[in-house]
Amino acid sequence: MESLEVADVTKLNALAAGTNKKTPRIVAAGLGGRLMGTRDLVKITAEQVTQDSLESIAEKDAREKEHFTKNKHISEKPWTLSNFHQHLNWLNMILVVGFPAFGVYSAITSPPQWKTAVLGFTLYILSGLSITAGYHRLYSHKSYSAALPVRLFFAFFGAGSIEGSIKWWSHSHRIHHRYTDTPRDPYDARRGFWFSHMGWMLTKANPKNRARADISDLSSDWVVSFQHRHYLVIMLLSAFVLPTLIAGIFWGDYWGGFIYGGILKTFVIQQATFCVNSLAHWIGLQPFDDRRTPRDHFLTAFITFGEGYHNFHHEFPSDYRNALKWYQYDPTKVVIWALCKVGLAWNLQTFSQNAIEQGLVQQQQKKIDRMRNKLNWGATVDNLPVWDRSEFNARAKEEGLIIISGIVHNVKAFIKEHPGGQALVRASLGKDATKAFNGAVYAHSNAAHNLLANMRIAVIRDGDINGNTFALQQEFLDKEKLA
Amino acid sequence: MESLEVADVTKLNALAAGTNKKTPRIVAAGLGGRLMGTRDLVKITAEQVTQDSLESIAEKDAREKEHFTKNKHISEKPWTLSNFHQHLNWLNMILVVGFPAFGVYSAITSPPQWKTAVLGFTLYILSGLSITAGYHRLYSHKSYSAALPVRLFFAFFGAGSIEGSIKWWSHSHRIHHRYTDTPRDPYDARRGFWFSHMGWMLTKANPKNRARADISDLSSDWVVSFQHRHYLVIMLLSAFVLPTLIAGIFWGDYWGGFIYGGILKTFVIQQATFCVNSLAHWIGLQPFDDRRTPRDHFLTAFITFGEGYHNFHHEFPSDYRNALKWYQYDPTKVVIWALCKVGLAWNLQTFSQNAIEQGLVQQQQKKIDRMRNKLNWGATVDNLPVWDRSEFNARAKEEGLIIISGIVHNVKAFIKEHPGGQALVRASLGKDATKAFNGAVYAHSNAAHNLLANMRIAVIRDGDINGNTFALQQEFLDKEKLA
Ligand code: HEM
Ligand code: HEM
Ligand SMILES: [Fe+2]
Ligand SMILES: [Fe+2]
Ligand SMILES: [Fe+2]
Ligand SMILES: [Fe+2]
Repeated sequence: MESLEVADVTKLNALAAGTNKKTPRIVAAGLGGRLMGTRDLVKITAEQVTQDSLESIAEKDAREKEHFTKNKHISEKPWTLSNFHQHLNWLNMILVVGFPAFGVYSAITSPPQWKTAVLGFTLYILSGLSITAGYHRLYSHKSYSAALPVRLFFAFFGAGSIEGSIKWWSHSHRIHHRYTDTPRDPYDARRGFWFSHMGWMLTKANPKNRARADISDLSSDWVVSFQHRHYLVIMLLSAFVLPTLIAGIFWGDYWGGFIYGGILKTFVIQQATFCVNSLAHWIGLQPFDDRRTPRDHFLTAFITFGEGYHNFHHEFPSDYRNALKWYQYDPTKVVIWALCKVGLAWNLQTFSQNAIEQGLVQQQQKKIDRMRNKLNWGATVDNLPVWDRSEFNARAKEEGLIIISGIVHNVKAFIKEHPGGQALVRASLGKDATKAFNGAVYAHSNAAHNLLANMRIAVIRDGDINGNTFALQQEFLDKEKLA
Repeated sequence: MESLEVADVTKLNALAAGTNKKTPRIVAAGLGGRLMGTRDLVKITAEQVTQDSLESIAEKDAREKEHFTKNKHISEKPWTLSNFHQHLNWLNMILVVGFPAFGVYSAITSPPQWKTAVLGFTLYILSGLSITAGYHRLYSHKSYSAALPVRLFFAFFGAGSIEGSIKWWSHSHRIHHRYTDTPRDPYDARRGFWFSHMGWMLTKANPKNRARADISDLSSDWVVSFQHRHYLVIMLLSAFVLPTLIAGIFWGDYWGGFIYGGILKTFVIQQATFCVNSLAHWIGLQPFDDRRTPRDHFLTAFITFGEGYHNFHHEFPSDYRNALKWYQYDPTKVVIWALCKVGLAWNLQTFSQNAIEQGLVQQQQKKIDRMRNKLNWGATVDNLPVWDRSEFNARAKEEGLIIISGIVHNVKAFIKEHPGGQALVRASLGKDATKAFNGAVYAHSNAAHNLLANMRIAVIRDGDINGNTFALQQEFLDKEKLA
């Protein structure tokens, strides 16, 4: 017999991690590159990826034990007063804690001119949307294609959010999607709200969890490469110089422009983005899959221009939409759709309605199965003892037994509770009441059938046994269909 | 072989309809009895009940055709200008349309004194609760037992709602439950909102639809018999004399007492009760069973002291509660519970939590099954052609085929849409990518498995075929369980 070629997992992992190509510079050059950088985390081979994904983390620990006992990484050591400064990523501490703290302090001491407030708010929207529509949906997920001016816009204003270059951001983000809820997930939500929000960038990461994702497609966009190479300059221009100059030149508020249009705007966008990693894996519903942490919540969507329908997004990552219902808030989707209408975007990716509803159905099925398993459905027919008719006839009156669908039920305790009155049940004792129960006297509800199933004690030998009394009743009802 | 005795359906129907006993007076004596009366509708034998419930209404029509061609009942004739007065039930027209119209007119011309308004509102609550907690849950459904003072209270204030005697009301109501959504249902909701709201009582009913329910248990309560016998007097005292005298003697507002505490109070309660037959079979959700019309809606509950969770109620009629969740509005339940706490009620009936949740699970399952059937789930394994390995190997590269779980998938059209990039799918063409797809490279989402199923074109002869790729993946994942 001819053989089938099995796909070589290591080779595929090389493709997926991009290690078959010359390592692209994921961490940008110079100080700009080190912003939020995780340089050592990307040094990994396809063989290592393959090994780890087939073995448990425990085995991996064992394998790397020798290395780490000799040379324990700071992230593996407990926090103490004398080593906490080694745990911290000081550059990020300054960028995402120090600066904003200074900004908030300045804001409290000098409230904004209204023109400056409007400027700050406008830039917040421009830079924020550049992250959601640009960094995230366009570059990380290729959920559509965009014209050069749009890409330049995203690259410039996105840099102003101070969240790293497109290349670095998308690389981390693709790893997050591929390794969600595993140690390799940079924002691993299982480690708690705080870790996934900011902890991961404020402390040094454990190189044991290094991972790589292919971003070679991004390198072919010169806008991306250019932004990556000149990240520091572009970031400073976009984040600080632009607002300072606008407010300064047009209405003389240099300091306000710097504080509100620069520091505070950046702070708000950063916090919103961080919320996608923390809050969106923390609060809300899981309509598509509850095996992993992502969740759908209006609140998260509201503060992130629509990125909060995160359960949907992890399930359908390359859909340019994050939410489908009219009442769900996803302005980023609307922006992309509008760009498409004016010809600046095209090739908008969507998953089929069929696939989306399949996901909903399956998740609901899972929930129902869980509920069902918690309930008592009565003995299954196979597990019941088999009685002769004579046995039934002998015991029925005294013990309070009724046959329905070939199954013997003990209704003694129920007689007094029967909503249709005691008389009817008493008059049926010792008899086959299949027809009476199923419509000839009263077509009982689902509830009645369920109660009945919990009264099963035996089946009648050679009887016309039918465990599904519902179906049986439906037959009766269909036959006499009224009107 | 010994035989099994089959329950005699006609005898049981005699029990259920109470026709084995001397016909009790269901329609009360005198003018009071004719209020809303349906005297001729209860003349039916157990044989007739039995015949009708096993045969279709069409056959019944045929059977009764002769009688009705000779002697057509007014309800079978079309409405015309010259016969509409025969269609109408004039007594009820006066009681539930004429009186209220007069009351509303009087109210508009003379606004109430605030004391009179408070009196009217108080009586509305007392008489309204006497219908819900008394007529309905205590007497019609025996969902609890109550002390004499409570029963006297219900009999007196219930009569003040002008909805007939307990006996008559409970009889109709039991028929409504037993024959819901059939021609015998007095308020048959399938005949439209208006018919089930008031139409049924304002027009003459078709005697073809006569029905009987056993109410012999009620006759054993002397309060019920007494109220039935002296209904007209008690009704007049409770509905009109009491409020007129109170308002007149204590603050001189005889006329206001009569209009607000009498006519208008009665009108509001009547309309609320009618809503249980119309609105509660019309708007809202069906969490327990959607084969029949009853529905759960807050609005209906709000205007009926909690009787609006009607889907629950038809499923669990003898439960003293109509709703279980804390956020559902069921003050009648609270009143019964409070009566129990002070020793004036006991023996409160409830269905088990198990039975209630079973109903929820089954109804949800039905909904999901319906959704599932509308979607495309790909070919089932059994319906796929069987290929030799050589056939696969020969055609795979060119046609874009991949094997996963022993099933051949045509992924050609999907390559460009793959959210994980084209390269990985291309590199898997012509190969068995079971492991890669299921975790060795990436543990795909439910969505991915669903898309895959829609790309099935064949199975491999002697292959390790597994139509359930989800389950397969779970095995892989469990094996390498991280963390
Ligand atoms: C022994 C098992 C039985 C169980 C568990 C059972 C259960 C129930 C339940 C739960 C109801 C409330 C309405 C509903 O949920 O459909 C009901 C009502 C009723 N049952 Fe049964 N029943 C049994 C036997 C019978 C038999 C043998 C008869 C007839 C011979 C009968 C006749 C009725 C009637 C006439 C009603 C009244 C319906 C109404 O007024 O709403 N039941 N039963
Ligand atoms: C031929 C049928 C395939 C289908 C229908 C499919 C479907 C998908 C889908 C829907 C996603 C989005 C994420 C998710 O829903 O899980 C995805 C992502 C991915 N797929 Fe596939 N895939 C296929 C084949 C493959 C193969 C053969 C490989 C590997 C050799 C692969 C590797 C990946 C990777 C690495 C991702 C990226 C995950 C991420 O960045 O979020 N896929 N695929
Ligand atoms: Fe996420
Ligand atoms: Fe994403
Ligand atoms: Fe009803
Ligand atoms: Fe009821």
